[in-house]
Amino acid sequence: MAGEFERIEHLRRLFGPAPEGVSVGIGDDAAEIDVPVGEKIVWTIDACIENVHFRQDIASWEDVGFRSMMAAASDLAAMAATPIGALCSVSVPRNLPDDALYALANGQKLAAQQLGSSVIGGNLSASQIVTVSTTWLGRTTLAPRRHGARPGDQLALCGPVGFAALGLRMLLKKPSWTAADEIETIALHAWRRPRARIEEGLRCMHASSLIDISDGLAQDALHLAMASGVQIDIDSSTVVSPALITLAKKLGFDAHELALSGGEDYALLATFPQGTIPVGFTVIGTCRQGHGVWVDGIPLPPKGHDHFRSP
Amino acid sequence: MAGEFERIEHLRRLFGPAPEGVSVGIGDDAAEIDVPVGEKIVWTIDACIENVHFRQDIASWEDVGFRSMMAAASDLAAMAATPIGALCSVSVPRNLPDDALYALANGQKLAAQQLGSSVIGGNLSASQIVTVSTTWLGRTTLAPRRHGARPGDQLALCGPVGFAALGLRMLLKKPSWTAADEIETIALHAWRRPRARIEEGLRCMHASSLIDISDGLAQDALHLAMASGVQIDIDSSTVVSPALITLAKKLGFDAHELALSGGEDYALLATFPQGTIPVGFTVIGTCRQGHGVWVDGIPLPPKGHDHFRSP
Repeated sequence: MAGEFERIEHLRRLFGPAPEGVSVGIGDDAAEIDVPVGEKIVWTIDACIENVHFRQDIASWEDVGFRSMMAAASDLAAMAATPIGALCSVSVPRNLPDDALYALANGQKLAAQQLGSSVIGGNLSASQIVTVSTTWLGRTTLAPRRHGARPGDQLALCGPVGFAALGLRMLLKKPSWTAADEIETIALHAWRRPRARIEEGLRCMHASSLIDISDGLAQDALHLAMASGVQIDIDSSTVVSPALITLAKKLGFDAHELALSGGEDYALLATFPQGTIPVGFTVIGTCRQGHGVWVDGIPLPPKGHDHFRSP
Repeated sequence: MAGEFERIEHLRRLFGPAPEGVSVGIGDDAAEIDVPVGEKIVWTIDACIENVHFRQDIASWEDVGFRSMMAAASDLAAMAATPIGALCSVSVPRNLPDDALYALANGQKLAAQQLGSSVIGGNLSASQIVTVSTTWLGRTTLAPRRHGARPGDQLALCGPVGFAALGLRMLLKKPSWTAADEIETIALHAWRRPRARIEEGLRCMHASSLIDISDGLAQDALHLAMASGVQIDIDSSTVVSPALITLAKKLGFDAHELALSGGEDYALLATFPQGTIPVGFTVIGTCRQGHGVWVDGIPLPPKGHDHFRSP
């Protein structure tokens, strides 16, 4: 087993040199960054915790690293920001083998690369359970907020919903689940290897409101409705895909519930003035005067994830 | 027990409105910050983990919040940076009472206030053990690095060392330790309520190298020596204070070892060209051609904290 400083040296080589604009990366007390004039900094933190966000029997260490980075980066997408880099604080049991730590780091690196970015530093410590905290910095010229939706705006979704929650349920049922067909592969992949929709977020600079779906479509739509002071109507037939219905039915799950309340797909949900929907977004509803989220004409009690209420 | 969203609302009120320069704080997907032209951003993350960095029987929840913020902010001091704000990711067991969480948050707020800054956002989730990850952003015009020490430079220390490690050992021996005199109070306080030396760091813009002491004086001096390619000679008589010697002797600890290898005092260690020592810094040694750290003429095997090697 390597010591702390050997491990940090391995990670420094793995993550490579600091990218342009980062004048100090791994190896000093903190990272130092040049911010282009006229741009704002967008900054977020997210945690990925063993036995809460993942279990060792249903995700590889590379999956854990990959997911933790993408989940955190999704908040940059929701602010129409381009990633500058990430700092990762990783805490692992003292007896976790080097290979496991390095596979986790490799997953972080792969995710950062997919987003055209890098891990530029972090922190390594011991813990009883594996805990990964990821902070991203991004830059933006115009970040859409949650509070700008107006009556008459259209509600649009970018990316499928429900598959990550279905993939997770499959794995919780049978950790060694092997995909029998392409739809099962898509569901497992949706949970294990989500994607932060950075490019799609950049198309939303003129959205009246924007959020990423981490808690579930209904819950996150409620965040927009409450922040903006509007009612949001969702047409569920535009949200629940035939593929999700087929697979959910085969496995005994409720596709409608998965699509509306399943989290961790990291799709983007935005509102736009009529006729300004960007490429890649599908209209799934409208905003009007009122309160709350209504699905197919029925007011919906929110059923998204609550860390302190869910079983 | 309050749910996740009620708790976030409580924390939002506790931490108050976003400070100047922070255009989006708690309540959206990420924080948004304006960076003054001509300044660089300094960015760090640190973890504070139950049963590794603290135990519930030796620290109040307010202590835990306070320490976690200061430990993380100390990296800003080590880059001669002024705090912009912090994001805190807090993970707690589902059955942790609201009062405990809010006391922890209050400790975070107190620490941020002492540094003239604020908590501007974060993340709240469940976990089996309490884990606090803190990321700070600061701004600087000129951040001293670790690699600039040159032969002939003087080594200088700002703040006492050894007291935090002594305070921790007292508490580990007897969690309910009540201070019998002023020196005991100082030791307990040094561990429970450390201070990030932000102001003192700002006096180091022209230091040839700078680091904060989190791992132990000898270990952190070695970081400077290795990064700069110099030998560092320390005169231990300038480091081990009479008060530390008195208390350590009374309690059966080794003052010399505490001062050289005890961590978590968050003193600052810097090198300066001859005759440029700022107010508040004491000369404790010199730099010369060579390698490693020597104490009183004897080369020192580093004995600082290694998360994966220490018992």
